[in-house]
Amino acid sequence: MLLNGTDQVASMGPDLGLLVGKMNSTSLATSEYASIVSMNLFVALLCACIVIGHLLEESRWMNESITALFIGLCTGVVILLSSGGKNSHLFVFSEDLFFIYLLPPIIFNAGFQVKKKQFFRNFMTIVLFGAVGTAISFTIISYGAINIFKRMNVGSLELGDFLAIGAIFSATDSVCTLQVLNQDETPLLYSLVFGEGVVNDATSVVIFNAVQNFDLTRITTSDAFHLIGNFFYLFITSTVLGAGAGLLSAYVIKKLYFGRHSTDREVAIMILMAYLSYMLAELFFLSGILTVFFCGIVMSHYTWHNVTEKSRVTTKHAFATLSFISELFIFLYVGMDALDIEKWNFVQDSPGKSIGVSSILLGLVLVGRGCFVFPLSFLSNLTKKNENEKITFRQQVLIWWAGLMRGAVSMALAYNQFTRLGHTQLRGNAIMITSTITVVLFSTVVFGLITKPLVRLLLPPSKNLSRMASSEPTSPKSYVVPLLNDRDPEAEPGQERPVLHPSSLRVLLATPSHTVHYYWRKFDNAFMRPVFGGRGFVPYIPGTPTEQSVHNLIPEERN
Amino acid sequence: MLLNGTDQVASMGPDLGLLVGKMNSTSLATSEYASIVSMNLFVALLCACIVIGHLLEESRWMNESITALFIGLCTGVVILLSSGGKNSHLFVFSEDLFFIYLLPPIIFNAGFQVKKKQFFRNFMTIVLFGAVGTAISFTIISYGAINIFKRMNVGSLELGDFLAIGAIFSATDSVCTLQVLNQDETPLLYSLVFGEGVVNDATSVVIFNAVQNFDLTRITTSDAFHLIGNFFYLFITSTVLGAGAGLLSAYVIKKLYFGRHSTDREVAIMILMAYLSYMLAELFFLSGILTVFFCGIVMSHYTWHNVTEKSRVTTKHAFATLSFISELFIFLYVGMDALDIEKWNFVQDSPGKSIGVSSILLGLVLVGRGCFVFPLSFLSNLTKKNENEKITFRQQVLIWWAGLMRGAVSMALAYNQFTRLGHTQLRGNAIMITSTITVVLFSTVVFGLITKPLVRLLLPPSKNLSRMASSEPTSPKSYVVPLLNDRDPEAEPGQERPVLHPSSLRVLLATPSHTVHYYWRKFDNAFMRPVFGGRGFVPYIPGTPTEQSVHNLIPEERN
Repeated sequence: MLLNGTDQVASMGPDLGLLVGKMNSTSLATSEYASIVSMNLFVALLCACIVIGHLLEESRWMNESITALFIGLCTGVVILLSSGGKNSHLFVFSEDLFFIYLLPPIIFNAGFQVKKKQFFRNFMTIVLFGAVGTAISFTIISYGAINIFKRMNVGSLELGDFLAIGAIFSATDSVCTLQVLNQDETPLLYSLVFGEGVVNDATSVVIFNAVQNFDLTRITTSDAFHLIGNFFYLFITSTVLGAGAGLLSAYVIKKLYFGRHSTDREVAIMILMAYLSYMLAELFFLSGILTVFFCGIVMSHYTWHNVTEKSRVTTKHAFATLSFISELFIFLYVGMDALDIEKWNFVQDSPGKSIGVSSILLGLVLVGRGCFVFPLSFLSNLTKKNENEKITFRQQVLIWWAGLMRGAVSMALAYNQFTRLGHTQLRGNAIMITSTITVVLFSTVVFGLITKPLVRLLLPPSKNLSRMASSEPTSPKSYVVPLLNDRDPEAEPGQERPVLHPSSLRVLLATPSHTVHYYWRKFDNAFMRPVFGGRGFVPYIPGTPTEQSVHNLIPEERN
Repeated sequence: MLLNGTDQVASMGPDLGLLVGKMNSTSLATSEYASIVSMNLFVALLCACIVIGHLLEESRWMNESITALFIGLCTGVVILLSSGGKNSHLFVFSEDLFFIYLLPPIIFNAGFQVKKKQFFRNFMTIVLFGAVGTAISFTIISYGAINIFKRMNVGSLELGDFLAIGAIFSATDSVCTLQVLNQDETPLLYSLVFGEGVVNDATSVVIFNAVQNFDLTRITTSDAFHLIGNFFYLFITSTVLGAGAGLLSAYVIKKLYFGRHSTDREVAIMILMAYLSYMLAELFFLSGILTVFFCGIVMSHYTWHNVTEKSRVTTKHAFATLSFISELFIFLYVGMDALDIEKWNFVQDSPGKSIGVSSILLGLVLVGRGCFVFPLSFLSNLTKKNENEKITFRQQVLIWWAGLMRGAVSMALAYNQFTRLGHTQLRGNAIMITSTITVVLFSTVVFGLITKPLVRLLLPPSKNLSRMASSEPTSPKSYVVPLLNDRDPEAEPGQERPVLHPSSLRVLLATPSHTVHYYWRKFDNAFMRPVFGGRGFVPYIPGTPTEQSVHNLIPEERN
């Protein structure tokens, strides 16, 4: 009904009433009014998602993103019916909206709230999965697509299209991962799968550049080294840029001490610097996701401790809220867009082919991921002496399963490759778009629904607790945590307990990551914190006695 | 330099590197890359504004908006020079950006943080200024513009254009007012001038509709009544919509008690409901500014007390930060856009005429405002028996002066009336645009710089203190206020002190607004708070003892 109103509205009045001018621009005003109608409906749907998501909180299957996806699908049906089968969405899908506005707050918040110790302890495994794993998956999916789709006569697809399919479907969707894995319940799984999702963004950029500049059918050894070099260059520059932006914000806030005058200024500078780091990465053709993720990590380690207590509470929850709204927005949008009739029209005459393509893609995703999770986990386990630190087979299955979801990132990339400004006229392209939508919906809904129960089945809570050092895993979030102390105590352990000095070579060899951590702590306390602030190194601590008592303690290496 | 880069960039690479696809859409990618360059520069400038604004905090002349304006102007010069005199801004001015994204958070935050008691005590005076005053000012400026500009041979301007000039320049800019007047230092001035700025948005809508539907040269008595009726209809529906949205959010949060599960959900629902109220007002051709302002007031009176303590801190500062960034954005943009060479080219051959038009407009603004502030203050004083409550002559001068600024709202309206998508080819229109820019810059900078010292001159702090019940007027914001108690204690006085029952008729007549306040309190306590929550009526009060101790006090009528 509302969406049909555009024509009616034109006769109601040429303008929003807010502006004095615009008396002679009726057509402009009409399209503006239509966009206001859309925005109203969209914001109202977001509110509905929050309320319904809250009511379904206790459900063991649902999560907020699937709720939003279903509400989006239902709304899409209503819009489709009321518009007489013309349209099913409120906005035309825009990659800009997605990559420039919705994705950065989600990834930044993930970096800001991540359990740093858990993340860096598994750092090598994460990079292995994100770099080598994604490359393996890309190769398998591309190779499979070339061989199978060419025989199926899907349409006029070129080599570039097949490689794009490989790149689109080889990347884990970090936004989906955030939805189904809980950092408190399964910290190891979360840090591995989500970390992989962040790192593989850099891999995607490298693959994309390789597809453009190399002849992938005849790759030489020097080309391969070139690619590996590219990956490390990109990975390191992106990380350094993110960390640099975070450190700059910490330094500026520590030096100028904004809080003296205004909390708002501190919060504003944190938001703007984080966003600037993402945009700078885009400017220099780096991986924005990796940059903003590390910016979030550095900000939570240094900057966050330099601001007033009010700013701390505000940033913690404001970033989480922004991320939450962006996630809902994405899933609601994907649900609504899935029914867009224009693309389905091409497929109408051959529904079997579309279903076939979707099933093959899903199969390739399953196989491609399986081909790297298990071998790489085995490799990773070889480097670990301690039995407790190895990735068990059950955990490997979960890592494989939890990373199968393909979400809005895949959608955005598929739109980018196979449409021009959201429209397509080629049959092959239309089939690829509808298949991507099918894969995204199926994997998000089915794999997403099954993940939670699967985690519970394979890693029962009691075992979970003892193995993974999670703190109070099943209680609802807000009651567990006091006002400020819910920044997990492990991420930045009390620095002042007596330390096991790793003097013996055996200890050094047995626990290399702990040794790195030990020297990092030393360096951090001696050089970084005095310059950039951080816990216990702020000039003025506004009334949090717990923070001051931390001063005289010694860094603790393990928990 | 950076802005020139667009052509170079096209050869550097066709894409941002983030997306896999887009291999064959070079032109699109180039414009995207240029917009990324612009956004980087803009975000970096916003950061610079915050840092420089902080360093100039102690200055008695400057304020953050003027800093942003100057930085914008300087950047405009740099861009102009480096682009070889072609361009001076990073984005094309968009009213949508301004009215749909930047303005709502500013006005909502003003409503959320306003001292409610002060505001409602002066409510009749505010409405008088905002409705009758704006109408008087509109008449004088339009009449003056018609008579003077026609003789000056400015260009082909029609009656509609002259009336638009009246509407554009009759409205006080509430964003500028927020910058120069301090709620804590001069509460009466702030509530009168800012309140007027909010109410006159409704007046503008009525005038706009009148200009469209009536023949203003021959207005009859019934037309006049019709207009007055329109104003009250618009004023009441907008207020009711805003209050309704606020109450709905309070009810939903109280019933579902989101905080039980997640603080983020509470904050998200508050943001989304507030924004929804603004967009709904736009949808129904009401005054969005009035709606979102009252939504802010209701949310701070009910909703804010229903959420967890963490949400309270977060919303208070997150809303303020959003508003702060939006304000900086607007002033930075206005400064950058002021030098846009396209419009100045038209004026080059007759610089005298542009200066003349600007001076006449400034004069008309000064006269138009003077013509209603002094008579209406006199009228308002007649209704007040108590000598202390009357508006003194010095205060009248300040009300006149502080409302003279014309800012981004005027710019947006002028662009709307005199350009088409930011461009114009008519000489008359170009002169009006450049004159508007001149008036905006001159009034914001000169009037803005003089306001602070003028306030200090006419209302010395000591007098200020005794007359206006301001609390600690000169100390910087963050030090004065403890974590949560800076929501001024007067706005929601303790509800349970023994009350001065206004039994005698004399008291009733002498203090009508106090009587209204008394009955409102009774109604609020008996019906509203039990349903919608609010201070002292929330199921679970998270450890703020100060809030409970307020309970046993008596509402104090004057200070």
